[in-house]
Parts: sequence; structure tokens; C-alpha cells
Amino acid sequence: MFKAKINVQFKEGVLDPQGAAIKGALNHLGFEAEDVRVGKMIEVKLKAASLEDARTKVRTMCEKLLANPVLEDYSFEVAEESL
Amino acid sequence: MFKAKINVQFKEGVLDPQGAAIKGALNHLGFEAEDVRVGKMIEVKLKAASLEDARTKVRTMCEKLLANPVLEDYSFEVAEESL
Repeated sequence: MFKAKINVQFKEGVLDPQGAAIKGALNHLGFEAEDVRVGKMIEVKLKAASLEDARTKVRTMCEKLLANPVLEDYSFEVAEESL
Repeated sequence: MFKAKINVQFKEGVLDPQGAAIKGALNHLGFEAEDVRVGKMIEVKLKAASLEDARTKVRTMCEKLLANPVLEDYSFEVAEESL
């Protein structure tokens, strides 16, 4: 069993309305937030034959389903998990 | 200027409908996903007097606004950023 941690975020320059709303709320509460970006952290446990195979599968998952390549960038780490 | 990376996730045992939907979609695409959890990754750039002060501010942000302590756990890293 392998565990992947996938981070999906809007590309630089793409408007992030959720981040802008959080920035406004933080500043309203008295914090000095200069910039806020909100992304997704997706953890997937998957079966694969090897670490290499798991990495290939996770990359395919990102490209087919988890990230929108027009607007979003993704990065991930995969590690083997003992049962 | 300090940069905080904050990860907010549902606690173990709390139903994660977005994760369940992604798991269903991945399995439909032919992947063998056993478990999927979806959380938020929030990056905040903030002003603070010191790293210690920045960490205190980020913890307060999480407790007041960014995480719902009933349903969610949070973790964060803070680093100083050169301008």
C-alpha cells in the first residue's frame, strides 16, 4: 500500500477568491496578512506494484481528475506504507 | 515577512464527502484507491516581530478562523522569508 500527499493550487496569477476572502477576514481580525492562497491537500492510499508504479499512477490521477491543468499546478510525494 | 503553510483536515472519523466522491471517481477510472481524504492547504504571508510571534499569530488564526476545532485538525510550518 502506498500513500500519496497531493497538493493542488491555483497557478500564480490566477485569481483566488477564497484566499482573498480569508485575507480580508484575517485583516479584519487585526492580523497583518499580506497574501493568502488556498489550495487542496489530497491524501490517497492506493495499491501499486512498486514505488515507481505508484508515482506514475498518482501523476495520472492528477492529470485526469485531481487538478485542472489550465488553472492549477500540482505537486505530490509518495511513500510506501507498512500494513 | 513570514510565510506559513497551514494544513487543515477533517479529524479521523469525521465523514469526508469530497474524499468519498474522489475515491469513487478514481476507482471508476480504474485506479485502486483505498482511502481518500481532502483537506485545505492555506499559505499566509504575514508580518510579525519574530518567528515566535509569527507562530503565535498563526496558531490564533487557525483557532479563530481557519479551522473548525469541532471537526478539523490543523498543523502548520512557519518560515522567515527574505524580501
